[in-house]
Amino acid sequence: MEVNELNVTIIGFGAMGKGITELVNRKNCRIVGIVDPDPNMVGKRASEFINVKKENDLIIQPDIKNLQHVDGSVACITIGSFLKDIKPIIFDAIDAGMHVITIAEEMFYPKVTDPELADLIDEKAREKGVSVLGTGINPGFVFDLLIMTLSNVCQEVKSVKATRINDLSPFGPTALRTQGIGLTVEQFEEGLKDNSIVGHIGFPHSITMIAEAFGWQIDEIIETREPIIAKVKRELPFMTIEPGMVVGCNHVAVAKSGGKTVIEFEHPQQVFPELEGIETRDEIIFQGKPNIKLEINPEISGGIGTVAMVVNMIPLVLDAKAGIVTVRDLPRLPSMFPMKQTSKVK
Amino acid sequence: MEVNELNVTIIGFGAMGKGITELVNRKNCRIVGIVDPDPNMVGKRASEFINVKKENDLIIQPDIKNLQHVDGSVACITIGSFLKDIKPIIFDAIDAGMHVITIAEEMFYPKVTDPELADLIDEKAREKGVSVLGTGINPGFVFDLLIMTLSNVCQEVKSVKATRINDLSPFGPTALRTQGIGLTVEQFEEGLKDNSIVGHIGFPHSITMIAEAFGWQIDEIIETREPIIAKVKRELPFMTIEPGMVVGCNHVAVAKSGGKTVIEFEHPQQVFPELEGIETRDEIIFQGKPNIKLEINPEISGGIGTVAMVVNMIPLVLDAKAGIVTVRDLPRLPSMFPMKQTSKVK
Repeated sequence: MEVNELNVTIIGFGAMGKGITELVNRKNCRIVGIVDPDPNMVGKRASEFINVKKENDLIIQPDIKNLQHVDGSVACITIGSFLKDIKPIIFDAIDAGMHVITIAEEMFYPKVTDPELADLIDEKAREKGVSVLGTGINPGFVFDLLIMTLSNVCQEVKSVKATRINDLSPFGPTALRTQGIGLTVEQFEEGLKDNSIVGHIGFPHSITMIAEAFGWQIDEIIETREPIIAKVKRELPFMTIEPGMVVGCNHVAVAKSGGKTVIEFEHPQQVFPELEGIETRDEIIFQGKPNIKLEINPEISGGIGTVAMVVNMIPLVLDAKAGIVTVRDLPRLPSMFPMKQTSKVK
Repeated sequence: MEVNELNVTIIGFGAMGKGITELVNRKNCRIVGIVDPDPNMVGKRASEFINVKKENDLIIQPDIKNLQHVDGSVACITIGSFLKDIKPIIFDAIDAGMHVITIAEEMFYPKVTDPELADLIDEKAREKGVSVLGTGINPGFVFDLLIMTLSNVCQEVKSVKATRINDLSPFGPTALRTQGIGLTVEQFEEGLKDNSIVGHIGFPHSITMIAEAFGWQIDEIIETREPIIAKVKRELPFMTIEPGMVVGCNHVAVAKSGGKTVIEFEHPQQVFPELEGIETRDEIIFQGKPNIKLEINPEISGGIGTVAMVVNMIPLVLDAKAGIVTVRDLPRLPSMFPMKQTSKVK
């Protein structure tokens, strides 16, 4: 398949949607629709926000239903994290005959959140002959795809421990609010109770997928979210965090099988961790045969990496089976979507 | 598919073949044949060499042609590195109706060595409806599968540098001889000229696969092999290496595209590198968006990992398309072959 035969629809034109648009534009895909309900965007051309070729410089539409000739294109949906929020958008995209790639965390393995809704999405997608994939850095790579890939060199895996220490300072106030950043410890505890503070979304999804791959029966998943308290002041463009305030959320998930911890994920997310001498990194440790210790230092950038994962999955989703597909049932080994099919490196 | 419905034939009963036999025995596969032409093995039962269940304790046969009822089984072939040496064994296995997994390095991507012979193997395998896969740690994982998997988080990769520093001390005299270990520098240089010293086998194979995945046109691959000279004495059960003698081979491969180095592999293999303060490790560095630095410390064990890769590929090869398959066109994401389909972790 020629790269420039790939048609892409962009649903959600925030930071991720803009990044995806720029990248698919550079990869010689044809952009056939851009959707964002934001009144500051509707009716404007993409080029008012980003650099795109003339043929890809479409007018932003408020709704998928405004699009035409999008049948068979791949919709890259960057709105929402939770299945209940993104459900109507996914159904609209399927109804329009689009394949779907979404970064909504719960869509990485939707049956974990809601098996009935997942079945319904699967059924609708199969009726329309389109594929639906959830991807991202996490869930999507560090805590699942990379772990499963690493397991190929193992005769046996007894336990997995993975840690992702990242810096949230490039993110905006909305993302920081869901981690409780800038709050007092008391406000953080209240936020946990009223679910306004969520930490990382997707631990049960990554854990379930790994457990199925490894043939493990998980009896229990225990998640804990602890405030990270600032020892030194951190300054953001829109907020100053004084010592003693919450500067992040350390979200831990532990999966047990037969009374033993078989998977342990630790994901402390804060702003400017280096101010307290903390290095950002991704780390995976296997106990098994062999033992393995893998480190990526610094951590894979969440923003750059999420855009990349979405775009790199486009050619794979087009060739995947109809229905919900996970990273485990892609039709071939996923890897970077080339700039051109064969080219000298610039 | 139930794990215990998988039938496996073992071709080559050296260290790797024995390891594979023990592991598939533990994974509840049925062993349907064991072949090794070594007169010290022929006619003996597997249990004279390793622990196996009674039903898997077969008599070692001298030739594939002595086997019966192996049609549809997966042959794990651990004889040979070069296509020309392993060719008759692969054809015999295909003729017997077996799928093939081999650790012969050149079979990782056989068209790189001999496109006509690769086509012939592919054609024969398709006629018989069986799949043929080359795998291993290297080629097979560190310098290719792991690099391609890591590229999923990249919007662009400009160059790849990978280093594998390993310890050859667990290996026997045959393996060490092909690296020139124990020779003088002059003997090493002669060994390079008469091809008795080969260093690592498979750099062009890994490079070609990555380049195709990334859409890169490689103009030139330059391989160099340098002796590693001992500064301190190393003692092996069968050999003592004095300072000034060759203790390993540093094999480097550089791939150029449009005048630039796009892939650089460095693979210094020696015995007891820690005696000179050298840590064994696998390292992958991407220049691109984002830059990435991944390290596995210590390196993935070549022996344990090779056995694992072969066994973990068994269920995938059974479901793959007929003909030659590479790791890029496996039918789903490869990961550890479970001990049982679903079990509590012991």
